[in-house]
Amino acid sequence: MSDPSFANTPEPPYYAVIFTSQRNGEDAEAYGEAAAAMVALAAQQPGCLGAESVRGADGIGITVSYWRSEADILSWKHHAEHTAIRNRGRRDWYTRYITRVAKVERAYDWFAKTAP
Amino acid sequence: MSDPSFANTPEPPYYAVIFTSQRNGEDAEAYGEAAAAMVALAAQQPGCLGAESVRGADGIGITVSYWRSEADILSWKHHAEHTAIRNRGRRDWYTRYITRVAKVERAYDWFAKTAP
Repeated sequence: MSDPSFANTPEPPYYAVIFTSQRNGEDAEAYGEAAAAMVALAAQQPGCLGAESVRGADGIGITVSYWRSEADILSWKHHAEHTAIRNRGRRDWYTRYITRVAKVERAYDWFAKTAP
Repeated sequence: MSDPSFANTPEPPYYAVIFTSQRNGEDAEAYGEAAAAMVALAAQQPGCLGAESVRGADGIGITVSYWRSEADILSWKHHAEHTAIRNRGRRDWYTRYITRVAKVERAYDWFAKTAP
């Protein structure tokens, strides 16, 4: 399956960063550009296994990025461009967010059978 | 913070079930009722610490539920009503989903300062 909406993760164990956020509704164009740039930049980092991201009409979003190791997550956390965007996000775009770092222990991939 | 969009989770460690799904677009009313009923039923289960859920306009959704232990997750997995709805979801509502079970090790809650 190559659907880009799903991260093509390997067998566990690996790590997940669950980022739940509330947008303030301001500055939609700049935010959208920065969000897309960060997804693309994250994908280039060592140990990044992919990401899944959804934002609803109410401004709540969940992005889950998947990583090979905690060290890879810390490297991305401290990446200069990521740090600059995070600071801008706090100033201009978010009212609240929670970041959770978790170790994925089991995973199940189900998909509907399609006609041959 | 009592915003219902964010789960009011305790200090880690605790567990997360990350459920990423693609709706087929069929049967929206029945699906919406069942999804709301499952969120309410999950919240009543022993060890459930809350949930965060978003579905985008493209039909991709991410729901993350938080649990005290793996045993609590397994009890919910095998709950009769949950099992029935899961089977219906496979038959009627989803084209694909991935379920990942993860142990949350660190969490950071940030929110914007508001005027006093």
